[in-house]
Amino acid sequence: MGFWKSLFTASDAAAASRPAQPEGQVAPVMTTTSGSRIFFSTDREIDLYELEELCDAVGWSRRPLRKVKKAIQHSFLVVSMWEQRGAQRRLIGFSRATSDHAFNATIWDVVVHPDFQGKGLGKALMKQVIKKLRSEDISNITLFADPHVVEFYRHLGFMSDPEGIKGMFWYPD
Amino acid sequence: MGFWKSLFTASDAAAASRPAQPEGQVAPVMTTTSGSRIFFSTDREIDLYELEELCDAVGWSRRPLRKVKKAIQHSFLVVSMWEQRGAQRRLIGFSRATSDHAFNATIWDVVVHPDFQGKGLGKALMKQVIKKLRSEDISNITLFADPHVVEFYRHLGFMSDPEGIKGMFWYPD
Repeated sequence: MGFWKSLFTASDAAAASRPAQPEGQVAPVMTTTSGSRIFFSTDREIDLYELEELCDAVGWSRRPLRKVKKAIQHSFLVVSMWEQRGAQRRLIGFSRATSDHAFNATIWDVVVHPDFQGKGLGKALMKQVIKKLRSEDISNITLFADPHVVEFYRHLGFMSDPEGIKGMFWYPD
Repeated sequence: MGFWKSLFTASDAAAASRPAQPEGQVAPVMTTTSGSRIFFSTDREIDLYELEELCDAVGWSRRPLRKVKKAIQHSFLVVSMWEQRGAQRRLIGFSRATSDHAFNATIWDVVVHPDFQGKGLGKALMKQVIKKLRSEDISNITLFADPHVVEFYRHLGFMSDPEGIKGMFWYPD
């Protein structure tokens, strides 16, 4: 139930113009050249092994699943991206954000499977995250970007070091 | 009850060596030259008007108290700093952190009253925040620092842009 929880509002024009979807699903945001469909979900009931497989595919260090589960539970927002081909679905992207539910949100763990990179899907994923955070009245959306993705985020409207504000990380002495 | 919730563990040597405190209080971490004592608390039941007064004193823009309340409720950690003089206490510092309760925490709203700046109290406040986050097994402690406090945080062990990682803020087009 509610697995394909919609990020679109009922008034979303593009969605409304499409045929009705099965209950709980959202209209596909994209149809791939191979005929599969791409969906987003805000459901947190993600198979942790499937998520680990996705993170492995981009070369991330493995993290204890117990902690990953806890982090997902305590994130303010989780947006996952799925390819649906017939009855089969595959996790192809993920992102989450922590927040104080009032002013600030920080986006973490943005990942798109290498097979699906370079197709605008990372951008589509981030737009869903931003849209959702903005709909929750969060005004300050932040993240920490690795050097090779700074330009990617800049194109999405993120600024690095605005007014000299520096992102800082604590390291034990 | 528990207003002066301790950030120290029972085994904290310095605290243990001091005379017993009234229930719920922690040993003072500092005695000022005027004889008042400085305490820390992790209690969230902070008088919002007192907090607003503190933020006014450092020139911050006012924020809706309804949202401040929500932000405090949904922060992972709140550390406040108090001056106690006889039976009277005064809020002189504040800080909070959002977190996924597993990997990351981000520190927000660090403030020390101007009357108490330049005495090492900001450093003491931040050390309490770091100590508490570390005790909760948070390995990645982050913040966004205004240019004039970058050095302050650097002395506390924070690094700006480690390995080229950039703090970024989203702004609407």
